[in-house]
Amino acid sequence: MTRQPRLSKLRHGGLFSVPGVQGAAAATGVKAACKLDLAVIKFDKPMSAAGMFTTSAVAAPPVRLSREKLRQRPAARAVVINAGNANALTGERGERDAKMMVDAVERRCGGPALVLSTGVIGVPLSLDRVLTGIVDVTQRLRPDPRDTVDRAILTTDTCTKTSAVRTSGFTVGGVAKGSGMIHPNMATMLAVMATDAPVSAVALQSMLTRAVDRSFHEISVDGDTSTNDAVLLFAEQPAVGAPRLTGSALDDLEEAITEVARDLAGQIVKDGEGASRWMEIEVHSARSEDEARRVAKSIARSSLVKTALAGGDPNWGRILSAAGASGAPIRPENLTLELGGEVVFETGSPVAANPQSLDAIFSGEEVCVRLGLGRGDALARMVTTDLTRRYVEINSEYTS
Amino acid sequence: MTRQPRLSKLRHGGLFSVPGVQGAAAATGVKAACKLDLAVIKFDKPMSAAGMFTTSAVAAPPVRLSREKLRQRPAARAVVINAGNANALTGERGERDAKMMVDAVERRCGGPALVLSTGVIGVPLSLDRVLTGIVDVTQRLRPDPRDTVDRAILTTDTCTKTSAVRTSGFTVGGVAKGSGMIHPNMATMLAVMATDAPVSAVALQSMLTRAVDRSFHEISVDGDTSTNDAVLLFAEQPAVGAPRLTGSALDDLEEAITEVARDLAGQIVKDGEGASRWMEIEVHSARSEDEARRVAKSIARSSLVKTALAGGDPNWGRILSAAGASGAPIRPENLTLELGGEVVFETGSPVAANPQSLDAIFSGEEVCVRLGLGRGDALARMVTTDLTRRYVEINSEYTS
Repeated sequence: MTRQPRLSKLRHGGLFSVPGVQGAAAATGVKAACKLDLAVIKFDKPMSAAGMFTTSAVAAPPVRLSREKLRQRPAARAVVINAGNANALTGERGERDAKMMVDAVERRCGGPALVLSTGVIGVPLSLDRVLTGIVDVTQRLRPDPRDTVDRAILTTDTCTKTSAVRTSGFTVGGVAKGSGMIHPNMATMLAVMATDAPVSAVALQSMLTRAVDRSFHEISVDGDTSTNDAVLLFAEQPAVGAPRLTGSALDDLEEAITEVARDLAGQIVKDGEGASRWMEIEVHSARSEDEARRVAKSIARSSLVKTALAGGDPNWGRILSAAGASGAPIRPENLTLELGGEVVFETGSPVAANPQSLDAIFSGEEVCVRLGLGRGDALARMVTTDLTRRYVEINSEYTS
Repeated sequence: MTRQPRLSKLRHGGLFSVPGVQGAAAATGVKAACKLDLAVIKFDKPMSAAGMFTTSAVAAPPVRLSREKLRQRPAARAVVINAGNANALTGERGERDAKMMVDAVERRCGGPALVLSTGVIGVPLSLDRVLTGIVDVTQRLRPDPRDTVDRAILTTDTCTKTSAVRTSGFTVGGVAKGSGMIHPNMATMLAVMATDAPVSAVALQSMLTRAVDRSFHEISVDGDTSTNDAVLLFAEQPAVGAPRLTGSALDDLEEAITEVARDLAGQIVKDGEGASRWMEIEVHSARSEDEARRVAKSIARSSLVKTALAGGDPNWGRILSAAGASGAPIRPENLTLELGGEVVFETGSPVAANPQSLDAIFSGEEVCVRLGLGRGDALARMVTTDLTRRYVEINSEYTS
């Protein structure tokens, strides 16, 4: 018998559904039109902290600083996030600016702080505005900042992204930014999650790594890895000598964290200006999960697949061609391809499918693609968006 | 003193500028509207043969057959090419069809033949039409088939692609298909080159490998590797006991082959429906050529870079961000980025450049980008197209 998960989703919940989390936001003028662009999140006590960051070799100064701080001491009392300027590729000045932001927040929140930034790349930050904003915001922190923090971290997102779940007496909540479409100069997805469950930093980091693999790593929009991508997760520090979470309580907690991460990732991939359709790609019967993911990613990134999706064209040759270009040692004779449950390719040959039913499947908002590799029993999933004219408009008509 | 190359480009030359090469083409009905869609190329005598093929794991039956034939015996008397149907992902029937095409041509041309196909993927070939076409075409072979062969191998290309060069008493000529933009179901680039110089098959294969690295591997359009990509190169077989080409004659020949390949590759990347601008990317000061190529490819494939190019937006943060996502161990503080000769990033920081002059550089038809990695002295080049609304239209409005 499989254990029943004991999760309940909070309808309007987010990061601030978690007890002991406070926040506030301000408009510093970095974003135009008096939009909120600075947020501080503060915890009532020092928390265990875990993070996953972009693998880019030109990671932005705030990413480098937060990563280094977590490496030295995986704990935090606060997070500061600014939007409108990514403080990326800004050299030594960028490093100093990120450090100044952290110092200012640490002085005011009484403990170690982390920093995240998102927005335009290669432009120095207006540090004065941000520091003035930090003084202001840290005086107005409260347990329910309504949606101000959720809005302050957005760039060209069209809506806020929040999620919260309750399990075994604990709450897990989170907030994210990121858009289903690439945006002018706007790097990135950011997410901050927290729980009031007591977890050591080491256990927290492994939970986060597994949860990100099953959420943010399963979405693909434009295939570009940015300079500023970051996901942070906080939990209460276990009291010295207190009993640790074990067994099913620990499993429930990891499930809740994964659920919040998946919910936020889904909201990101859905928030696509220009995106009109989504494809859920399941690659199964792979030799390993890595192999399955590699094939799924190759399909999710293919411009040919993404334009066929935009046109509602059940052009499955493009899907198999992208799988073949993945580098995985697959063989046509072992592949099985299903579109929305209809088998179109099996044992190396096309299967005569009903064109009307394929057209109907491809005209829906969500298209499910299942590809079996016939090599083992590992599996991976990926959600991708279509590539539309609107996408190109958004990204090419911008003038810096 | 550097040796002066002794190449002269033939103004209207192509594959049939090479003595001893004949061809003919026909319209079999596989393509609509009575368009030419079948070509046979025949050599007056058996030739040394070399080939480079797609690395796709789902390579089409004609690719698999030609690759295997060359492996067993690197010689050929003829090549048959059909367009409109790629005979890809067509299973055992596809393997049989490709074999039947080769058999029919070998019977009529008196020696080993190779086969290439291009067009729609996953649809069985109308073999009867193709075989009837082969009977017809092989009766009409001639040394100057005008542009019929050049046209018969096209899919949605907007123009034919040919090139020829004379050097040290020999001629190198070639013909290619492939379009600067991805096309509905249309896989692929194909190229066939030949020379009347005497070269062993082993020497020919290494010349081809190096030439392709400096030509077809330097262009990127949509980043997709197709099921049918192939480049073939033929040369006269050296007579037994006759003196071999050596020293500068051999160097000249390789230079001529590379020149023809580069010319054809340039014509492919220029033939983009929808493409309005091109970016030449030079990555220098890399630890190795592989590293330089990896970084150049990551920039060339980035949707963010390609849409910025379409919009004429000198948004260089996207270029460095794509370089950082390449996986190469670069460091911001060692990077130097120039756009059209203007340095915009150096020693880890942005350099204040004149916005007007950057706008002017990005509004031209060709934009040159030079990125130094500060890690060594290896170099690679890549040409890429912009990503335009027209590109999406072409690829999404098609209905299969």
